[in-house]
Amino acid sequence: MVETIPDISIDRLGTDLRELSEIGRAEDGGVYRMAFTEADMEGKAWLEQRMKDAGLETSRDGAANVIARLAGKNPDAPALVIGSHIDTVPCAGILDGTLGVLTGLECLRALKESGQVPERDIELIAFSDEEGRFGGMLGSQSFTGQVTPDTIHLATDPGGVKLADAMGEFGLDPWLALQARRDPKSVAAYLELHIEQGPVLAGHEEQIGVVEAITGLFKWTVSFSGEPNHAGTTPMPMRRDAFMGVADFAHELPRLLDEYGSDRSRATIGRVDLTPGSANTVPGEAKFTLDVRDTDETVMHELAEAARRILNAIARRRGLRSSYEVESWIKPVDCDPALTDMVEAAAKDAGTRFRRMESGAAHDAQIVASICPVGMIFVPSIDGKSHSPAEWTPWDDIEAGARVMLGTIQRIAFSENT
Amino acid sequence: MVETIPDISIDRLGTDLRELSEIGRAEDGGVYRMAFTEADMEGKAWLEQRMKDAGLETSRDGAANVIARLAGKNPDAPALVIGSHIDTVPCAGILDGTLGVLTGLECLRALKESGQVPERDIELIAFSDEEGRFGGMLGSQSFTGQVTPDTIHLATDPGGVKLADAMGEFGLDPWLALQARRDPKSVAAYLELHIEQGPVLAGHEEQIGVVEAITGLFKWTVSFSGEPNHAGTTPMPMRRDAFMGVADFAHELPRLLDEYGSDRSRATIGRVDLTPGSANTVPGEAKFTLDVRDTDETVMHELAEAARRILNAIARRRGLRSSYEVESWIKPVDCDPALTDMVEAAAKDAGTRFRRMESGAAHDAQIVASICPVGMIFVPSIDGKSHSPAEWTPWDDIEAGARVMLGTIQRIAFSENT
Repeated sequence: MVETIPDISIDRLGTDLRELSEIGRAEDGGVYRMAFTEADMEGKAWLEQRMKDAGLETSRDGAANVIARLAGKNPDAPALVIGSHIDTVPCAGILDGTLGVLTGLECLRALKESGQVPERDIELIAFSDEEGRFGGMLGSQSFTGQVTPDTIHLATDPGGVKLADAMGEFGLDPWLALQARRDPKSVAAYLELHIEQGPVLAGHEEQIGVVEAITGLFKWTVSFSGEPNHAGTTPMPMRRDAFMGVADFAHELPRLLDEYGSDRSRATIGRVDLTPGSANTVPGEAKFTLDVRDTDETVMHELAEAARRILNAIARRRGLRSSYEVESWIKPVDCDPALTDMVEAAAKDAGTRFRRMESGAAHDAQIVASICPVGMIFVPSIDGKSHSPAEWTPWDDIEAGARVMLGTIQRIAFSENT
Repeated sequence: MVETIPDISIDRLGTDLRELSEIGRAEDGGVYRMAFTEADMEGKAWLEQRMKDAGLETSRDGAANVIARLAGKNPDAPALVIGSHIDTVPCAGILDGTLGVLTGLECLRALKESGQVPERDIELIAFSDEEGRFGGMLGSQSFTGQVTPDTIHLATDPGGVKLADAMGEFGLDPWLALQARRDPKSVAAYLELHIEQGPVLAGHEEQIGVVEAITGLFKWTVSFSGEPNHAGTTPMPMRRDAFMGVADFAHELPRLLDEYGSDRSRATIGRVDLTPGSANTVPGEAKFTLDVRDTDETVMHELAEAARRILNAIARRRGLRSSYEVESWIKPVDCDPALTDMVEAAAKDAGTRFRRMESGAAHDAQIVASICPVGMIFVPSIDGKSHSPAEWTPWDDIEAGARVMLGTIQRIAFSENT
């Protein structure tokens, strides 16, 4: 076979995207390919066939992760793993993780066609249930040995269906997910392309995000308790209005981020519940969610500590009681600096407009980072939209993303260094 | 019969209160005497018997209002009507409107016993469904001719039971409520004693509220629309967070009341709903209730106008859209100045600590004001609590209230002037 210079075909990638987008598509235009549904399993089968059509070896592990392998010169060298996920939230768009998987497939196809053989194996993996029908990241957590019998036993979807039953319907044994753990020594690096899911790249007319870190986050459920009083009979100065505590806290958020955060900090109140919740009663109790993110765990700790002080100060000032429960604390993850430099070099080579940035959303890469260096490539999301049929990335940017991924793969897998 | 100086008996009033409090009492300690339930009808029957025991003539009108009459010297003179209601909210305390009815009964009993005959008839009325199982104020609205066939046809309780069916169970024809209208010429004045349901009197260690006005109110459902964005991927400056609009508005309320309101103005946000309402999404839409009250309708209009401007300004500043729906606009009602002076004189005569004040809650008096002068007497609510088993008024204050009511009745019904 004569070697040619490998290049991706946007037409072929476009065809794949269109074909897979029809699997799980509903009449409302949304894609419903939630983990371990008929559509998800059909999607996995379709993907496996496309991998085989490209001449790649395929396999599935115990977590039903779909894997393709392009053999390298040295089968003992740790492999480069690329991937993402093809499961979706309900009423999803057609890109999200799917774009990362299909771009990876197109890169392997281009390499295979070119006749060039990498130094090390390149594996393409579509992780199961990234979106969290059963909690999230099941595939990458299994791959990295983070699931336990308890995780599997307790995993239930919002409709009350157990993971074991959902997998059982397709003849899958969930306990095999415990055996899907991959030997870290066998993995050199993990590379993931994903849509940004935010407005930054599109807002700056840039094509590529060179991801330096994936933000950590903490989620609290916060309560203020005051006194439920009659809205007509209780003079303003005699109230202990729990909602006014929430309003105060909302207004402290910009100062919190300015004083204790970084440019990458975010703080969001996404849900508020007032009790008794009637128009003519001063709220006696207010519960709200607080979601705070940063790429630096030290900054996260400082934000948490400052948020605690602010809650206490508001409670004291307003005659309320405040309390909070920590719902989650997820550590931030740095992308590997060397990998990040390679992504940047590939972005330059491809002549793209790029920026170094953080990922504000969670990704499989965050989980895989526990066993190997990871790198991520972002492409723009128009208006920052994702998890909706309105999710889109211009074709030129998808093409640019695929070229950057191919260039990064060449830098990693055609080098003998790990 | 020898005339004596009439005086109320707190023991007799206490016995009545205790007896009626057992009708509809549940194991949780709350009273469940909602309009046109078994308990309500049993309460009406009990009341009627107590009226008869006191030697009063009794009757019921088409709205099932229970009426007792103490005949005066001049049967053609317009009557003094006193009253309130004995129906309750679910899980109520034992006072609320019941205290007004039973205090009225005790006053009529004291007058009857004394042998003094008033110049005009005095009628005691317990209005049906003040608390609003079927919308509220059915009894006083029927009495004043404000109900229509449509009101009766559409009235349904929160559980979907139609007024007609609820009344029908007790052999009552709801259409007769249309015939309960009382000729305004036959009513000289209406006097109502009620618990304050607010913390003002108790907070000032006062026993009597001389009510000058009943507040009007407007209720809006307000919406801010922004953009639902990912809480992780959307930088703070790129957000259009609908909840931040609500927080801004909450913080403008004190200024709104300071600049456009009076000491009697109140503004309350009692309910907030964020969409999509998930912890990790910037709220794209926020709906909230706004309840604003004052005793002066001109002030209410100014508050509404200023609230509109504030909403628009916030929307402009935050890149949101704002809109609101007017759910209700209830005009304030002034108590009659002459009646109010009589209540004050009676409060002075009884040696009580009193204050002139407004009613922040709605009462039957507000409805009856459409056909005659009204006056109201408040007694304290400990901690401002009402509509709960914790609702209470010290016996000394109940006694003081009864004496002030009796004194006011004597001033009105023993005078030949209307």
